[in-house]
Amino acid sequence: MTTSFQHFDDPVAGGRDPERIVALRTELARRGLRGFIVPRADEHQSEYTPAHAERLAWLTGFTGSAGSAVILDDEAALFTDGRYMLQAPEQIDTDRIGVVNGTRVGMGDWLSERLKPGDAIGFDPWLHTAAAIARLGNRLENIGARLVAQPENPVDAIWSDRPAPPSAPARLHPLDHAGQATTEKLERIRAALVKARVGGLIVSDPHNLCWVFNLRGGDVPHTPVVHGYAIIPREGRPHLFIAGEKLAPEIRDALADHADIAEPAELLGAIDRLSENGTRVRIDQETGADALRARIEAAGGIADIAADPISLMKATKNRVEIAGAREAHQRDAAAMSRFLAWFADTAPAGGLTEIDAARKLEAFRAQTNALMDISFPTIAGAGEHGAIVHYRVSHASDRGIAPGDMFLIDSGAQYQDGTTDITRTLFVGEPTPEMREHYTRVLKGHIAISRAVFPKGTTGAQIDALARLPLWEAGLDFDHGTGHGVGSFLSVHEGPQRISKTGLVALEPGMILSNEPGYYKPKQYGIRIENLLLVEERPIPGGEREMLGFETLTLAPYERKLIETALLSRTERAWIDAYHARVYEKVALAVDDRTRLWLEGATRPLER
Amino acid sequence: MTTSFQHFDDPVAGGRDPERIVALRTELARRGLRGFIVPRADEHQSEYTPAHAERLAWLTGFTGSAGSAVILDDEAALFTDGRYMLQAPEQIDTDRIGVVNGTRVGMGDWLSERLKPGDAIGFDPWLHTAAAIARLGNRLENIGARLVAQPENPVDAIWSDRPAPPSAPARLHPLDHAGQATTEKLERIRAALVKARVGGLIVSDPHNLCWVFNLRGGDVPHTPVVHGYAIIPREGRPHLFIAGEKLAPEIRDALADHADIAEPAELLGAIDRLSENGTRVRIDQETGADALRARIEAAGGIADIAADPISLMKATKNRVEIAGAREAHQRDAAAMSRFLAWFADTAPAGGLTEIDAARKLEAFRAQTNALMDISFPTIAGAGEHGAIVHYRVSHASDRGIAPGDMFLIDSGAQYQDGTTDITRTLFVGEPTPEMREHYTRVLKGHIAISRAVFPKGTTGAQIDALARLPLWEAGLDFDHGTGHGVGSFLSVHEGPQRISKTGLVALEPGMILSNEPGYYKPKQYGIRIENLLLVEERPIPGGEREMLGFETLTLAPYERKLIETALLSRTERAWIDAYHARVYEKVALAVDDRTRLWLEGATRPLER
Repeated sequence: MTTSFQHFDDPVAGGRDPERIVALRTELARRGLRGFIVPRADEHQSEYTPAHAERLAWLTGFTGSAGSAVILDDEAALFTDGRYMLQAPEQIDTDRIGVVNGTRVGMGDWLSERLKPGDAIGFDPWLHTAAAIARLGNRLENIGARLVAQPENPVDAIWSDRPAPPSAPARLHPLDHAGQATTEKLERIRAALVKARVGGLIVSDPHNLCWVFNLRGGDVPHTPVVHGYAIIPREGRPHLFIAGEKLAPEIRDALADHADIAEPAELLGAIDRLSENGTRVRIDQETGADALRARIEAAGGIADIAADPISLMKATKNRVEIAGAREAHQRDAAAMSRFLAWFADTAPAGGLTEIDAARKLEAFRAQTNALMDISFPTIAGAGEHGAIVHYRVSHASDRGIAPGDMFLIDSGAQYQDGTTDITRTLFVGEPTPEMREHYTRVLKGHIAISRAVFPKGTTGAQIDALARLPLWEAGLDFDHGTGHGVGSFLSVHEGPQRISKTGLVALEPGMILSNEPGYYKPKQYGIRIENLLLVEERPIPGGEREMLGFETLTLAPYERKLIETALLSRTERAWIDAYHARVYEKVALAVDDRTRLWLEGATRPLER
Repeated sequence: MTTSFQHFDDPVAGGRDPERIVALRTELARRGLRGFIVPRADEHQSEYTPAHAERLAWLTGFTGSAGSAVILDDEAALFTDGRYMLQAPEQIDTDRIGVVNGTRVGMGDWLSERLKPGDAIGFDPWLHTAAAIARLGNRLENIGARLVAQPENPVDAIWSDRPAPPSAPARLHPLDHAGQATTEKLERIRAALVKARVGGLIVSDPHNLCWVFNLRGGDVPHTPVVHGYAIIPREGRPHLFIAGEKLAPEIRDALADHADIAEPAELLGAIDRLSENGTRVRIDQETGADALRARIEAAGGIADIAADPISLMKATKNRVEIAGAREAHQRDAAAMSRFLAWFADTAPAGGLTEIDAARKLEAFRAQTNALMDISFPTIAGAGEHGAIVHYRVSHASDRGIAPGDMFLIDSGAQYQDGTTDITRTLFVGEPTPEMREHYTRVLKGHIAISRAVFPKGTTGAQIDALARLPLWEAGLDFDHGTGHGVGSFLSVHEGPQRISKTGLVALEPGMILSNEPGYYKPKQYGIRIENLLLVEERPIPGGEREMLGFETLTLAPYERKLIETALLSRTERAWIDAYHARVYEKVALAVDDRTRLWLEGATRPLER
């Protein structure tokens, strides 16, 4: 059994080499800096950073997906969040670097207590958004210290074997998957720029770049993006800045229909020309580097830091993308059902491990002959590993899955017609009543989101609590959002919409979101149940408002053993039965006999 | 039957006198201004503005609680919100002043389309917050126009018979109602200033001023506040700026224990002294006038525009205030039950009007011998009037209440131990099934909020949707927040907490909030059901998180005729029965025999 897309090597922990911190401090002293900020970030604020941008991991050993270190002359700290409070101390040298829960003590607070008037803290202006730098800069100013941009990153100065930037070939995303031509997309963007009264837009988010130009690539694992920039002026031809080595002649020709193509090094000069005469230039508040703001302002322009209008266009999928998403999910559902049937057959005997399961699932997906990549590293957590929200199995951590174990598996696929993301929590053997209660409460929250109807204009923040209420009633909760946006053969985490306390964007028809409440019992087990949902119009007979609701895209049975039907309302039971019937109807003909037999049992109506 | 606190006179519409606009334009031309902004606001951004600050009503005739006019040389507009889109055109001279729904077209948008580079628009810096002026100023700057502060309001220059500012006597709010001495409150505030790293606080919110100094007064109707300012430096004695005529010698003596007392005219000089040497001075983002910011900055200080820390302290009631709130609600409940019984006996015969009902309710409250004021003008809307969310009955609008009518009555009382606010929707005769469905859906939302349990840190925004879900399921909604904070013998609308999309403050034990979902069928009827709730700790056996819930303070039966039990879950029916049993237990002994008999029927368990 071969798997192409996921490896299980242990995260590189080279940063435990204390020499690196020492070398960095020497470099900082040379520059007259008391400290330097090392975020886990690249120039595009990407979720998946290419190897050449993994400065935080190289320096400290920390490989979590979110964090920032501050290295002062006499002290150092790693700021991360609740998800990584267990992992971080295991990976870094805590004698030299303290671990701080950044949601409790911000970097600004921490620095304010340590810096003296006159202290200078360096930062790489390509690795922070303008807003983040403005906020932190204000904090430091209050105590007489200051932030100083470092055009040359001091970590790079000491990182001798730093990898090269990615250079995967770009390819066109054909119209029968993209659903809208670049010409039309550019027209929509120009109209948005006119409405926003700006003279041009710098596209700093590679996903947005790929969406506009119907491009896909392979510059980072699991997300088929091409790294680069674009400038879209309100009038005139756009400019695309993508390393020439990524562009085969036919790709370059196709792109040249829409834009002038140049090397990324030419971006800054183009910004200078765009910014002349006080032009307002929009930069994306989420991904636009402070270096872009500084350059616009230095050239006499006005940096308009707000949402890149492309983000919302990309988030609301068109008819072709929606049809593709349904296809992709149906295809993925067959692979998933084969996996679930295999697991049900194999796990009770013992002997399976987390890696076995992750490999088998990828293999079933590969057998669809349509798998382009997995959409993120599979989270396969048995027993206590399930309680680690972003657990990633490696050869060192791999654990057997035995009777009595809860098993959480969160995975997804990249197909050309759509991106999937599904979590199921399974059980081997007989669960305890407490486990059944916990699973059922999570499931009730998941159903509440699936069934929700809400007026146009409602944000994800407004409905997030529906997923939590059944847990709250038992004094429980989970410490992550309920759902994130999902791209169309793009990132599995896509904004601006989300279902969480911070989801302040209105949900619109065509948006795809995950619905994934959970419950985590530390050191014992984790439960998460995730489907992807499509926002759709939902007219209500006799109603007065324009209402929206969700179509469930994901098709896979829930774990019957873990469902405590006594805790379900009649409506909830009916919802599960209808969903299961739909799963059977859509999937049964696409799977082998053994899987179909298993599916029949797994989707029959619940016993009362 | 006499009522002291509510009048039913028609709002003064003197502003329809076109001469006033003409005179203002002459004054503006004299000052070189193309226009001037006239908000409905006083120097404290008060909800209830004293008569001398009713410039908007005097100039335009508009008496709504929220609005701003812009008078340009050649055009004028009144910006208000959806609540007043019917009332405003009736009150103002629409030939001269356009009505604009400010939630759709902001003043900035409107001005941007009309102003030319170089145009100057005046504003009174005492009537706008610093943030509002900064935002609007930026908009105008973009098009080359500018805002110019007018130290002398040009409306005042032409308003010859302008009333004097209020000068009601201040009185002390005794410790057995306030629950905490000023000395201790000042200590808490100073600790907050140290934590916020500011050198001093300007208290611009009269409610906060009253809270700190345990003062009450009568400068505006229905809210027992004293208008004035305070400066609380991080170190040293506070300064109080209250007109001397309001302070009897014994009050002045008591206050002098805590602060130096001066006339309001001395405020600016004191700000100058506080702001010396670059001191950071906190001004309240909600109520702090732009004039305060400008003065701090002119004197060399840094204006730190953020929340006045007093607001949160005042919002979380202490034990004495909580005990007082329970007493006040029990007292109010007796008056309310007498009213409901009277209404049930009297209304079916016909002949009652909205004013009769409002008067009778006030009379029952007055008979408690504890009524200090009503907490806001009673909203008494029969039939189609109920659909006007902020309907205020006057002699001109007064309407009969006849069989077949829905009747919404929203009212409250000020007692020395607490402020109440209750809405009940009643029915005379037999409601239609549709009316019962609508009422029951509103009630289901109201119950969902009452029953909610949620972890510490949860905001009102997170639970707001619980009140809407039963309406959403029928394609319905309501266009106001679900709940607002309530003061302790202070304003019936108090921040910072609220249950609404914009309620981003965490709910904390001791906070009092209203729970008032509604449904409004335009031109037919309005439904609203409102209780006040107290946030309390709610430990859950076997739970893992610190949970909060609500104690319902308000005690009055719901309208049984309007409840469709088939739409209620078993849990909801049980909640209503338990609430009704509690109402009977708490109220029965405090009312006359006839009311008790009625109450017995009104609170008996629901039929299945």
